[in-house]
Amino acid sequence: MAVGNIEFPHMHAVSGIKLGATCAGIKQTERDDLLLVEMTEATTCAAVFTQNAFCAAPVLVARDNLEKQPRYLLVNSGNANAGTGEQGLLDAQASCAAVAKLSDVNSEQVLPFSTGVIGEALPINKIVTALAGAQANLKEDNWDKAAHAILTTDTFAKGYSKIIEIDGQSVTVTGMSKGAGMIQPNMATMLGFIATDARISQANLQECLTETVEQSFNRITVDGDTSTNDACVLMASGKSSLPELIAGSDVMLQFQLAIQEACKYLAEAIIRDGEGATKLIKIKVQQAVSDAEAVEVAKTIAHSPLVKTAFFASDPNWGRILAAVGRSGVDGLDVNKISIYLGDVCIVDKGGRATSYTEAAGQKIMDQQEITVTVDLGRGECEQQVLTCDFSYDYVRINAEYRT
Amino acid sequence: MAVGNIEFPHMHAVSGIKLGATCAGIKQTERDDLLLVEMTEATTCAAVFTQNAFCAAPVLVARDNLEKQPRYLLVNSGNANAGTGEQGLLDAQASCAAVAKLSDVNSEQVLPFSTGVIGEALPINKIVTALAGAQANLKEDNWDKAAHAILTTDTFAKGYSKIIEIDGQSVTVTGMSKGAGMIQPNMATMLGFIATDARISQANLQECLTETVEQSFNRITVDGDTSTNDACVLMASGKSSLPELIAGSDVMLQFQLAIQEACKYLAEAIIRDGEGATKLIKIKVQQAVSDAEAVEVAKTIAHSPLVKTAFFASDPNWGRILAAVGRSGVDGLDVNKISIYLGDVCIVDKGGRATSYTEAAGQKIMDQQEITVTVDLGRGECEQQVLTCDFSYDYVRINAEYRT
Repeated sequence: MAVGNIEFPHMHAVSGIKLGATCAGIKQTERDDLLLVEMTEATTCAAVFTQNAFCAAPVLVARDNLEKQPRYLLVNSGNANAGTGEQGLLDAQASCAAVAKLSDVNSEQVLPFSTGVIGEALPINKIVTALAGAQANLKEDNWDKAAHAILTTDTFAKGYSKIIEIDGQSVTVTGMSKGAGMIQPNMATMLGFIATDARISQANLQECLTETVEQSFNRITVDGDTSTNDACVLMASGKSSLPELIAGSDVMLQFQLAIQEACKYLAEAIIRDGEGATKLIKIKVQQAVSDAEAVEVAKTIAHSPLVKTAFFASDPNWGRILAAVGRSGVDGLDVNKISIYLGDVCIVDKGGRATSYTEAAGQKIMDQQEITVTVDLGRGECEQQVLTCDFSYDYVRINAEYRT
Repeated sequence: MAVGNIEFPHMHAVSGIKLGATCAGIKQTERDDLLLVEMTEATTCAAVFTQNAFCAAPVLVARDNLEKQPRYLLVNSGNANAGTGEQGLLDAQASCAAVAKLSDVNSEQVLPFSTGVIGEALPINKIVTALAGAQANLKEDNWDKAAHAILTTDTFAKGYSKIIEIDGQSVTVTGMSKGAGMIQPNMATMLGFIATDARISQANLQECLTETVEQSFNRITVDGDTSTNDACVLMASGKSSLPELIAGSDVMLQFQLAIQEACKYLAEAIIRDGEGATKLIKIKVQQAVSDAEAVEVAKTIAHSPLVKTAFFASDPNWGRILAAVGRSGVDGLDVNKISIYLGDVCIVDKGGRATSYTEAAGQKIMDQQEITVTVDLGRGECEQQVLTCDFSYDYVRINAEYRT
């Protein structure tokens, strides 16, 4: 079902980061659903979390524990532990305590993450029981197994891995993400875990992650819904021989670009796996007064069920794109300055149908699997891009059958 | 396909308002698609229009002409004359001129309305040719025929008609609406035409309509999209023996209530006919700090594809409703004060699953065709309601097949 040919890459181990997955039988008993990640002592750890007011119990606990020098991540799929009130909080804490009991760390040094059904009690006993198996599996080259253990409605595992050279030293960036529906991240993504062996302070790492997420995971949408459990974690083990990264340095800039590339790749993979998606759609809004304005217009188009069903039908129905731009709430929009392109085909020029436009030219673009829509607002110099997918029968089927 | 048993009512003629419909063959040749409405000389006429920045050519012309004492409405379905630039404007004006030529009014006394496909040139010759037929048909008791002529993807005609007694005099209120998709009106509705024989100044009539629309047509959504062509017109012929209505009077209040009832009925009929709809969902948000906050929360729930597909599946998947409330952007929302009800079943109490809740109780409500969701925010005294429908396979089919 994925859009494009996404191959799971060879995942380079990140020195100092071990992963162990196992099946706890949370929602099913066929595949791994519990993941333990161990970080070596010097590792710094940054994270961003969902801005949904109803954030899940594990998010509350992980947010608190982030400043306690985390040594473990504990991730389960199949149950979100969201909307579970006080008991959910106790369960999230109990899962951290269980990890602490098996290791030599404090339970506050464990960050818990859950994804799956909302509103059902976390089967904490199953998790505690399975934990020893996950711990016994801890290995630096377990990323493939780990990337599969965190999936829910995803149809494929999402991984990224590169060894790059910075200032003559090699640095590894390896990460994974999960997500296919309930995707409009808000200051965070669906689950994303990225590790590197670079050495960097927690403050600099956090700044790097926050900036990167804004331009990657926060620029994708499947259905406009923001999950209660979104989180993205960046771990830096410091095992590379590259000296500690200093904010503002050229070396830091290269590192940030490497993290950006990883996050953009993993974000795009989520859209390629959008529930029922048959097309990957990049919506680029340029000549906006501000970045916020460009994002707003792009998201209005990206969220329109009418635009999304037209893409599903491969129908160059540009009137729906135009209508979405028109209702996006831009103050003082002059429609006579707007141009809209499907791929490189100009469909709207100065607010009306372009005289050069032919249905055949539009159809040729719409028949492609990956389509860029460009909107020139003609009122400023800012540009932003949002990725989305189409809306198909399968989106309805998946979400009518699956309980989030 | 409609939700509930909607019968087209007997439409009482409104003295002073004549309607004539005919087939101009705009998009098809099987049924009427052109409607002419003639208002007697003393008629006052109020209207509200789409706030979409890309408003269609007929909207631009009708907005201008509203203050020129309109005597005719000219409505066509099958072609929206939107996104058609300068030529579209000339075509809209030409259609008004054609009406003027057949009658004794100025072309600026004609309000044009179009609904249908966006971005295609209006077949003005077909309209001009067919116009004489519509004029020849002008009759006060032609509402049934008229209500059918304005439809596009609608599966049934939407009418409302009542003769009420105000201050001992009888007043007629008869109206019709069209709409099934691209429905999130913004200061207006899809097409709505309501007539009364009451006597009332244009200013008072406009105020009455604007207030009423805000609580009726502006409280419905099918897909969150706002059409380029939305408009709602209220005509008052003054033929009733009731003296002229005075703002602030008790009689005026009774009149306003009658108009409200008509608009709410016609708005609900649009949702019952929502594209692919199998359920009518009323989302009531109470204990909000402001009306705007209540509407925002209700619309966030109403627009969530995940909530809408859960309703389609009759799945009491309240986690999705909770997640939508959580991302609705309410400042300082305290989730611990929130309760959510499906019908009269409490599903969320103080931010978590209600202890009294059973899946069976939730399922019983979800199996119904008409469902009320109530959200108590626990932070104020304001209450608002939004109507929507579910999201089905047929929504995708209709919008993949039909070009708006």
